[in-house]
Amino acid sequence: MRSLEEFYRALDDARERMFTTVERVPLDALAGWSADPATGTIRHHRGGFFTVEGVRVDRPGHPVDHWSQPIINQPEIGILGILVKEFDGVPHCLMQLKAEPGNCDGIQVSPTVQATRSNYLRVHGGNPVPYLEYFREPSRHRVVADVRQSEQGAWFLRKRNRNMVVEVQGEVELLHGFHWLTLPQLHRLLAQDDLVNMDTRSVLACLPLIAPEPEHERDRDRDEFTMALLRSCRPGSPTRHSEQNLLSWITDTRVRTDLSVSGVPLTGLPGWRRVEGRISHDSGRFFDVIGVQVTAAGREVARWDQPMIAPYGMGVVGLLVTRIDGVLHALVQLRAEVGYVDAVELAPTLQCVPENYDVLPPAARPPLLDEVLGAPASAVRFDTVQSEEGGRFYHARTRHLIVETPYRPELAEHPDFRWVTPHQLSGLLRHSHYVSMEARSLLACLHSLATVSSPAGVR
Amino acid sequence: MRSLEEFYRALDDARERMFTTVERVPLDALAGWSADPATGTIRHHRGGFFTVEGVRVDRPGHPVDHWSQPIINQPEIGILGILVKEFDGVPHCLMQLKAEPGNCDGIQVSPTVQATRSNYLRVHGGNPVPYLEYFREPSRHRVVADVRQSEQGAWFLRKRNRNMVVEVQGEVELLHGFHWLTLPQLHRLLAQDDLVNMDTRSVLACLPLIAPEPEHERDRDRDEFTMALLRSCRPGSPTRHSEQNLLSWITDTRVRTDLSVSGVPLTGLPGWRRVEGRISHDSGRFFDVIGVQVTAAGREVARWDQPMIAPYGMGVVGLLVTRIDGVLHALVQLRAEVGYVDAVELAPTLQCVPENYDVLPPAARPPLLDEVLGAPASAVRFDTVQSEEGGRFYHARTRHLIVETPYRPELAEHPDFRWVTPHQLSGLLRHSHYVSMEARSLLACLHSLATVSSPAGVR
Repeated sequence: MRSLEEFYRALDDARERMFTTVERVPLDALAGWSADPATGTIRHHRGGFFTVEGVRVDRPGHPVDHWSQPIINQPEIGILGILVKEFDGVPHCLMQLKAEPGNCDGIQVSPTVQATRSNYLRVHGGNPVPYLEYFREPSRHRVVADVRQSEQGAWFLRKRNRNMVVEVQGEVELLHGFHWLTLPQLHRLLAQDDLVNMDTRSVLACLPLIAPEPEHERDRDRDEFTMALLRSCRPGSPTRHSEQNLLSWITDTRVRTDLSVSGVPLTGLPGWRRVEGRISHDSGRFFDVIGVQVTAAGREVARWDQPMIAPYGMGVVGLLVTRIDGVLHALVQLRAEVGYVDAVELAPTLQCVPENYDVLPPAARPPLLDEVLGAPASAVRFDTVQSEEGGRFYHARTRHLIVETPYRPELAEHPDFRWVTPHQLSGLLRHSHYVSMEARSLLACLHSLATVSSPAGVR
Repeated sequence: MRSLEEFYRALDDARERMFTTVERVPLDALAGWSADPATGTIRHHRGGFFTVEGVRVDRPGHPVDHWSQPIINQPEIGILGILVKEFDGVPHCLMQLKAEPGNCDGIQVSPTVQATRSNYLRVHGGNPVPYLEYFREPSRHRVVADVRQSEQGAWFLRKRNRNMVVEVQGEVELLHGFHWLTLPQLHRLLAQDDLVNMDTRSVLACLPLIAPEPEHERDRDRDEFTMALLRSCRPGSPTRHSEQNLLSWITDTRVRTDLSVSGVPLTGLPGWRRVEGRISHDSGRFFDVIGVQVTAAGREVARWDQPMIAPYGMGVVGLLVTRIDGVLHALVQLRAEVGYVDAVELAPTLQCVPENYDVLPPAARPPLLDEVLGAPASAVRFDTVQSEEGGRFYHARTRHLIVETPYRPELAEHPDFRWVTPHQLSGLLRHSHYVSMEARSLLACLHSLATVSSPAGVR
């Protein structure tokens, strides 16, 4: 196991060789991209990649009961895969240092493989994707996780990626730009702003935290919070709701959710306008669709143009956690998003861009905003800014908060909220479309606290 | 607990009061229904109910790589619910005797509630659905199963119903036409042709068989097959493949499956024609879309017209089962169907209408047809004709076969086939869209063998 200091030196070194420079240009000046004359849909002339389209959303009974918006349509299912191998009995994850044009801070820690279907089938030519074979023929290895999961349902139309963790035995050649890191090391990197990329957080969440045996010798030094967290990751720990109760709640909410999405022209999209070569909301809020010209060093393709989504303001996702019978529970909500395949997914307690509520009706304000954002510093267990995917989103950053609160049943009185354990979330994550990208990101951060708050680390 | 003899007397009695007479009429003579002048889509003038539309299917690389067909589009999610209550410590299911126009033999045994969303919201008026409240507010009772499941993917476009089992305590008024039956009694009825309707079989499959403890006293009289079946329903019994292995196989197959469906006009649908007021395939095979005029006695609405699907020939679904380490395993395949929400679902070993292969390329012939249909009588554990849903399908009958075979690993060499235990299927049935209608129907029949082959019955 290399030390984190060595990793940081490699990171500094990589930052000098590998970077992107991005220039914002008007959408109609993007080389290789054009808008459909009839609909305004923005697509690449070779097809593939992704398109930017318009949708109209209807949500009867909701504070905002209809709206229109641009959305990214990328129907291909890519692979996000982490290769795991034991060295001296300690599992290590093979991580890649990667620069994406939308990243704030250049390089981030990516999964072993992060490839769209066109990438890995080499539809547009290009070199083979390193380590892809482990994920294309997973049955030859031990598959720890293999599940399609959604991504941001507010910006992506039915986007799914295949999240995989594959454990190998035998030699694995270490290619330039790749690094073996232990889970505790990855957990420590999660405490740093904008370092562990969204795809890594997504895949890590699908890997259940294997907590040490109950009340293990080395647990004695741990604080009550960590003990409750470790208990909550173990099968058989008491839970506020049974698994069947949660599944029935999800079924019931999915059947009742009335959200319909229909394709409409991007040209003349109500509430949106073209300003200086980008597409913006009339209020200036939510997000812009922008054009960028990318020059990359240390990547196969050195220059390309593309549209991106540039959100307004910094997002916040927050998880209230509490101890029930000594077991940590997190307050999750069932949340509908435009782009979800199946109506609703489990989302964090809070998920919003606070500034957007200046232009929305008061009833749209999230119910537990003050509990999360107004929590005393002593209750805040995690507070880090994480980046959204830098290949599609431009400087999209989200503050991740985990806040501990005394158990107050009234917090879960809203029919869309319920207290669940991390172990229950891990169980649901074996299946598709139960746990949202935002919830997965926070679950990875929550898992990291088992390491960070105790030097003993997780197994 | 009433005896089955009493139930049969009630059934005979009901057959005299409650029946439908059906007259086949041309599609364009159906009162209340008309074809869209542009597309030919057949819809009811009040909207709702369902439509009959045309689709074009593309399946590159498949023996039949494209075709067009009519399909039923019924986007509403209805409720199929069975109410359970213990009498003298024995669980009883509240079943309804119901006549549907497509039934061959009049009355069948239906779930407590079998209602489309329009039905239960009383969009078209009508009386309240009896016992609906138990399923509309399930959190007030013990929910045993609550999951949306697909129906025939060859005839229905993305049809799902909510399958529910709710256990109640306290008095339940027994309304006319309803009967309390134990699981062993229902299992015995399953051995009879065309008696237990499709919706009941679907819901029963979502109810895991609770098998007695291993090697229980009363197991001693059971034969080896039943012992293997009971073991296979217990958690912790050895399985040929791990749950993670099955999930990864499903994810992999779903990602690789290339089946696309697009709406096309029903008018002039390639390969289909209007003959004597119905829509038929040029070959005369597969199915017809027909019109029927229904006169009903003992139902709220006494007379109505509707289109139905009338399949050609009798279908066959077959499950090969084998003992692996003393645990019964069933051979299932991942099968793509036009109407599935998520590309493929687990289907029986065999699922076909044998006569249709006269007009299809030889490569389309199902791989294990002869193993199932040519099995010696001594290997056949179940052989009964069951009916498909009589509200949409006219005289649609499917022979259900369960055939035991010695363990031959080569049977599962095809990448789309795998040996799984009933307990594994029950686990997957807690989630949507893993186990097809046809597989659920056979699983309910397989569960019934635990009762039928031993008078001790299941708990």
